[in-house]
Amino acid sequence: MGRSSVEAIETKEMDYQSLPSPQHQQAPYMHKVGVPPKQNLFDEFKTTVKETLFADDPLRSFKDQSRSRKFVLGWQAVFPILDWGRSYNVSKFRGDLIAGLTIASLCIPQDIGYSKLANLAPQYGLYSSFVPPLIYAFMGSSRDIAIGPVAVVSLLLGSLLSNEIDPTTNPNEYRRLAFTATFFAGITQATLGILRLGFLIDFLSHAAVVGFMGGAAITIALQQLKGFLGIKKFTKETDIISVMKSVWRSAHHGWNLPTILIGATFLIFLLFAKYAGKKNKKLFWIPAIAPLISVILSTFFVYITHAEKEGVEIVRHIEKGINPPSVSEIYFTGDYLLKGLKIGIVAGMIALTEAVAIGRTFASMKDYQLDGNKEMVALGAMNVVGSMTSCYVTTGSFSRSAVNYMAGCQTAVSNIIMSVVVFLTLLFITPLFEYTPNAILAAIIISAVIGLIDYEAAILIWRIDKFDFVACMGAFFGVVFASVEIGLLIAVSISFAKILLQVTRPRTAILGKIPRTNVYRNIQQYPEATQVPGVLIVRVDSAIYFSNSNYTRERILRWLMDEDEQLESAGFPKIRFLIVDMSPVTDIDTSGIHAFEELHRSLQKREVQLVLSNPGRQVIDKLHASNFVSQIGEDKIFLTVADAVLTCSSKFPDVVV
Amino acid sequence: MGRSSVEAIETKEMDYQSLPSPQHQQAPYMHKVGVPPKQNLFDEFKTTVKETLFADDPLRSFKDQSRSRKFVLGWQAVFPILDWGRSYNVSKFRGDLIAGLTIASLCIPQDIGYSKLANLAPQYGLYSSFVPPLIYAFMGSSRDIAIGPVAVVSLLLGSLLSNEIDPTTNPNEYRRLAFTATFFAGITQATLGILRLGFLIDFLSHAAVVGFMGGAAITIALQQLKGFLGIKKFTKETDIISVMKSVWRSAHHGWNLPTILIGATFLIFLLFAKYAGKKNKKLFWIPAIAPLISVILSTFFVYITHAEKEGVEIVRHIEKGINPPSVSEIYFTGDYLLKGLKIGIVAGMIALTEAVAIGRTFASMKDYQLDGNKEMVALGAMNVVGSMTSCYVTTGSFSRSAVNYMAGCQTAVSNIIMSVVVFLTLLFITPLFEYTPNAILAAIIISAVIGLIDYEAAILIWRIDKFDFVACMGAFFGVVFASVEIGLLIAVSISFAKILLQVTRPRTAILGKIPRTNVYRNIQQYPEATQVPGVLIVRVDSAIYFSNSNYTRERILRWLMDEDEQLESAGFPKIRFLIVDMSPVTDIDTSGIHAFEELHRSLQKREVQLVLSNPGRQVIDKLHASNFVSQIGEDKIFLTVADAVLTCSSKFPDVVV
Repeated sequence: MGRSSVEAIETKEMDYQSLPSPQHQQAPYMHKVGVPPKQNLFDEFKTTVKETLFADDPLRSFKDQSRSRKFVLGWQAVFPILDWGRSYNVSKFRGDLIAGLTIASLCIPQDIGYSKLANLAPQYGLYSSFVPPLIYAFMGSSRDIAIGPVAVVSLLLGSLLSNEIDPTTNPNEYRRLAFTATFFAGITQATLGILRLGFLIDFLSHAAVVGFMGGAAITIALQQLKGFLGIKKFTKETDIISVMKSVWRSAHHGWNLPTILIGATFLIFLLFAKYAGKKNKKLFWIPAIAPLISVILSTFFVYITHAEKEGVEIVRHIEKGINPPSVSEIYFTGDYLLKGLKIGIVAGMIALTEAVAIGRTFASMKDYQLDGNKEMVALGAMNVVGSMTSCYVTTGSFSRSAVNYMAGCQTAVSNIIMSVVVFLTLLFITPLFEYTPNAILAAIIISAVIGLIDYEAAILIWRIDKFDFVACMGAFFGVVFASVEIGLLIAVSISFAKILLQVTRPRTAILGKIPRTNVYRNIQQYPEATQVPGVLIVRVDSAIYFSNSNYTRERILRWLMDEDEQLESAGFPKIRFLIVDMSPVTDIDTSGIHAFEELHRSLQKREVQLVLSNPGRQVIDKLHASNFVSQIGEDKIFLTVADAVLTCSSKFPDVVV
Repeated sequence: MGRSSVEAIETKEMDYQSLPSPQHQQAPYMHKVGVPPKQNLFDEFKTTVKETLFADDPLRSFKDQSRSRKFVLGWQAVFPILDWGRSYNVSKFRGDLIAGLTIASLCIPQDIGYSKLANLAPQYGLYSSFVPPLIYAFMGSSRDIAIGPVAVVSLLLGSLLSNEIDPTTNPNEYRRLAFTATFFAGITQATLGILRLGFLIDFLSHAAVVGFMGGAAITIALQQLKGFLGIKKFTKETDIISVMKSVWRSAHHGWNLPTILIGATFLIFLLFAKYAGKKNKKLFWIPAIAPLISVILSTFFVYITHAEKEGVEIVRHIEKGINPPSVSEIYFTGDYLLKGLKIGIVAGMIALTEAVAIGRTFASMKDYQLDGNKEMVALGAMNVVGSMTSCYVTTGSFSRSAVNYMAGCQTAVSNIIMSVVVFLTLLFITPLFEYTPNAILAAIIISAVIGLIDYEAAILIWRIDKFDFVACMGAFFGVVFASVEIGLLIAVSISFAKILLQVTRPRTAILGKIPRTNVYRNIQQYPEATQVPGVLIVRVDSAIYFSNSNYTRERILRWLMDEDEQLESAGFPKIRFLIVDMSPVTDIDTSGIHAFEELHRSLQKREVQLVLSNPGRQVIDKLHASNFVSQIGEDKIFLTVADAVLTCSSKFPDVVV
């Protein structure tokens, strides 16, 4: 835009000297714009539905198969274990056994800690690591994901539930509402999968998830200060200011020194183990078993020193035995049904986002395909069954999945191994956790959630896309300074705002001819590109729909006026041809065509001829259907910008100077 | 996709015979992909804000002006009358006078009828045609719009308000809520304008508006059956089924024959006048004054025959005098404040949509620019002032604006003339309307709203875009069979669904070389285009954002697998190069770059080389920032598809066969 046309004309003349000008030789070959064969309405509809809901072609393997084969394939689709189970062998089992034992040792202390985040008794965390992983092993198709309770979902669930019911005064109602929410989380996940609406979770952008996770990690770590410092009176708010006030107020008499000593010692040990595992990838098992070792050592220490009498808080009571049934506890009627549904939808979506992101990451690392919608059905089924067996919302855990992967898991059998270990723990070992100090659980959680603060990703986001960075920071500060829900709301809102911005304000560019070629490109990207005198070439970079048709029309007119102003002040002739390069315009609707009709009318008043280049399949179809082609003339539509320029300048020789 | 590569290879060989192959002569000139100069952060931010909120460059005229001149321009920006008023002259006044008198004669009977739709006493319609047009004349910039109450907004307001308060039992509260809603409608409009968020109304698509208006017209016409047939007991629902039941039940004893006779006679007269006006554009004044003539004739007839004693319902009472102040009636506190706010936002947005659509239409017909945001401020101010002077929500009326235009209006002075006539009517003539039969008002409204049913637009929408047609019909049937609110909700939802579909499921295309050119185009649009053996060229037709990055990656991989399958079954070598044409990819975000990294990894496992062609300004910038360019290699990025193909085939001669 800033480029004066004087320069353009000079360069143009130079071009003419250095290159043989095609139009002085013979009429160059020009190919016509293709009008595709008319699709019938049903076919068009079918294609749209297919691309929207069945983009991954899930029935591909069913094609051309016998009926009995289709039956087998159908069962295998629902229970992938029937498929991969047939080629299972001892060497795979060895990998799965080691991985399963490793993640089990990691999950047991984490589960006890996470259930506290959800304001539930410690055994519910263990219950949730027994049933859901089993179900997933039969129905899921990821080979690397490790199922169980996770920190962020536990925090979110705890925070949403305690908005409705106080967990300390009404623990029974609270637990019942938790199962209700879990049930509906599962229903939500399965429904999205069955209706093939899995793409809805794509609306939470990567940047927003990075910010949300980081903020949640900080919030969770702050919550652990209660256990870590041995504070008795602690705020129920989760924002950083309330927590810091709470910590500060209790500084003089509320902190417990023995607690801090135990916690700090083991936190240093855990962080050191983490560091060792990071330095040397072969030592991945050190951070994986460090939590269990910490629990065993600290529990033993408290047991022999009776530190609980010094004010060190311990787990005290943890139920023995496996999951009791809980179908009858779910609220299927009344006020809490609706509340449970609402919380379930939110928690289910977040759990889904985490699980699908993990599944995709590992699938792409091992290069196997993952059907997102099928995954959702598996995750949904496992949460529905979980809600009936005293589990709360579970999903794929990032830290445990990474350990699982590095420990050499081969299939979902590692989840079965983990589940069996948890089962044995529930049957025989739980009473031993009685003397486990809460400070250790706090230290384990802190060292686990630190990994969720992905500052490297945040830096990369800053480097690549500033708007994404705003979304990331918005979600982060929302969670840290307000609450998990508000952070989530900010993340979703900013993500949507970005989409709306994309569709209302498409980019436009002025094109110029790149020297020594026949190619026209954005003059801002290619400053060496020269504009053709008397011709303005504008490219519109988006489908033209009702949401942007008015803007597009006004923007094109503004380009024209700006250019004319410059030309006039330089004493050059005005623009005579406006070529709109439609290459990136993938579609147009009735509002878009209206806008073009109005543009055409405005241009006629200014004695500027509208010319189109390279309209796509859908566009040329609709331009014909609406008679716009005959309004501007069939001969005003070209295959390429070069063809259009050639014709414009040959018809009106004064344009070329 | 359906095209076998056998054919492609054969055609390719033919091409080689008919055209001199460039790479056998000398290395062809290849221009590098431009990396634009790095913008600094603040500039980038400024550009984005400018294009989003100040796309129309409203401060353009303020540039390079002296301070006192800027002051004058500032006042003129708020009150355009200060600008155009200085060049006002007698010849313009003649046009405005005739137009003003014509629209006044049309608006008086319409106003009385429309106020009944809003469940308000008849004088409120007249009040609303006095103050708001005056305010608009000073602040608005459209020269053709005629301001006043309109049918659809009156119906919508009446329907929303009576959900909250029953207008027959609590007329005072009802009226107060109406003023409250009007106040907030004005505030909403002005706020959108001041914050320059006017583009938000673009989210209601043209198709949805056509459907909504058509449905509202039918609903309004059905409501008139009460007055037209003289039914006393009529349903309060607005859906067609309830209304028809109501009409049917009263058929035996509830209809009033004299009423029907009067109504039918004048309806025929009105429709005939309308027809005459349509046939001969010069007779536009016949349909314009027909309503007033009908009112005068019928009123006179009832007065002398005392038909009201035969059961013919008449207006009976209409307040004399101009608008009483109503500031104190607005609810600024309490429960109704929130309800008024909610109703005001909805009614204000719909009123805005109508006014802006009208303004744009006439501005483009006379080729002057209209600043949408400034218009909104004017409309908002007029409604805020209106709410304080006993007016309800007003906007631009389509039928009266068209009459205004045809009667030769020149400026907003025609609105002032109309306003003066209404003022005189309120002062002196209102008592004469006492004997006006309701059936006449019903006939006038029916003949007015018929014009809102734009079946030609619906047919055009069907021809151009089937999805738009679904939106149109959804809104239409929603209004007719359920209610105005539900129709509106359907319209907005379908509009949004379309946007979401657009951003989640971008189109992709396989490109082929058009014979005798160096141009690559979609092989579905150009069946004569030939694919290059060993090379697959995919074009992605949208910015790649978090909302579609996963889909895009999977879709590209699916194209590759489909193609490989076909090649394998035909016994041909596999694809070795995947060229992604990025021309339409206007932007990419962090999720998009992740998707490309994953795509690159998957392709490496299949021994396929990823090649990019023509990345745009933002895209190449971000590819560099994220180091993706160095991952795939700088030499894998080309300016055009042709360059990319040339290099791929020259480096690996076996690919060209």
